[in-house]
Amino acid sequence: MKKVNTTANAVIIVIGNEILSGRTQDINVSFLSKWLNDLGVKVTEVRIIEDNEDSIVKNINELKNKFKYIFTTGGIGPTHDDITSKSIAKAFNKKYGFHKEAYEILEKYYTSGKFNEGRKKMAKIPEGAKLIYNPSSGAPGFIVKNVFCLPGVPSILQSMVRALNNKIKGGKKILSKTITLRTVESEIAVPLEKIQNIYKGVEIGSYPFFKQGKVGVSIVLRSTEQNLIFECYKDIKDFIKKKKIETI
Amino acid sequence: MKKVNTTANAVIIVIGNEILSGRTQDINVSFLSKWLNDLGVKVTEVRIIEDNEDSIVKNINELKNKFKYIFTTGGIGPTHDDITSKSIAKAFNKKYGFHKEAYEILEKYYTSGKFNEGRKKMAKIPEGAKLIYNPSSGAPGFIVKNVFCLPGVPSILQSMVRALNNKIKGGKKILSKTITLRTVESEIAVPLEKIQNIYKGVEIGSYPFFKQGKVGVSIVLRSTEQNLIFECYKDIKDFIKKKKIETI
Repeated sequence: MKKVNTTANAVIIVIGNEILSGRTQDINVSFLSKWLNDLGVKVTEVRIIEDNEDSIVKNINELKNKFKYIFTTGGIGPTHDDITSKSIAKAFNKKYGFHKEAYEILEKYYTSGKFNEGRKKMAKIPEGAKLIYNPSSGAPGFIVKNVFCLPGVPSILQSMVRALNNKIKGGKKILSKTITLRTVESEIAVPLEKIQNIYKGVEIGSYPFFKQGKVGVSIVLRSTEQNLIFECYKDIKDFIKKKKIETI
Repeated sequence: MKKVNTTANAVIIVIGNEILSGRTQDINVSFLSKWLNDLGVKVTEVRIIEDNEDSIVKNINELKNKFKYIFTTGGIGPTHDDITSKSIAKAFNKKYGFHKEAYEILEKYYTSGKFNEGRKKMAKIPEGAKLIYNPSSGAPGFIVKNVFCLPGVPSILQSMVRALNNKIKGGKKILSKTITLRTVESEIAVPLEKIQNIYKGVEIGSYPFFKQGKVGVSIVLRSTEQNLIFECYKDIKDFIKKKKIETI
């Protein structure tokens, strides 16, 4: 598969033992990838790591200069295993402490007497970080340089990211077209490779599936150039017609 | 969260642009993690990377000495974007070519005239690799040293891993116990942290959830020592009783 031409790349770091243990099924990667794709940012790597300060610091330091954007999910809640904020502060050699506005937001969000120690912890972030507002449950995420820290609960994360649209500078939007065929991959492998070799600017993916006892293949064309996708699509249509393969 | 004591660790490398783009939701990580956990192997990292030879080679070389086991998923099919086998061969400086037994398996699996070029490609693996048999669809996976290469299609992957049970040497099985409470995390954060500080050998995770409009928290205790989980559980039961928190 050829590389789609884009410099606006991103890595997602999922911080969570519950994902690594298999207890919880991550669904944030798929959501964030699609959202970023629409903004012209291509997610080219994902890491799922432990709730462990060393792991977080090591990964942030390794990746912060390799990617335009880093998104972290998880570990910004009130309990002892929520150590993302403190670890990000350490990775950037920033102080970790109360953020005035975050404190005020949370103080206002919780009625008198309910702003307990656990909740106060959620106002502690790396010094100088910018807030990512949370319309669902008060506690904000934050941004340090190119690192965007979001919560792990999907519904809360999803409510927060739209406000980031104007903070993300993407490249050309990656366009895609899917062709779904009633065939098996090995029947189309040779002509598809030939077409891939012609269209270097299109990433051609071939994905077999089994649905309701029937096999099929989805061919996905991805490129920043609509005309290339169109030309490539025409060539694929030609060979599937010749081979008398049914489209779905 | 404290580290569970185990040396038998694993990393999963998901190879697939379709997962990175958000088009396909990965479900293999969760399956493999639970299966490995039952064998006493802890997955401590997951990487999702592109269908790109450089990425695969770089990641394998970086991780092969850091983890007892590496599992890859995806990229061993018949099409041009299936480059895992070739890339693994490169990472280990092995020749990439037809494996006699794999060729025979596939030749037998496909009836006369159906063993085409695409299908033949699936018999090409790194020289000296051992096969992982595939009871679902013929094409085998393979093992090179500590790297286990599996397909990306979940149903096929799931049909293949049981045969690996005797090839995995785990440590003590990681046991777990979950306590589900009708509360919010901030109400339990302080006592839970105190208990975590007493039970260093238990990894205590706290996971909020929202189901049918109601909030709750799952507390998950993980340890290789059943008695430690039991003692820790008793202490948690005590404080939730004192705080009059409802269990679910």
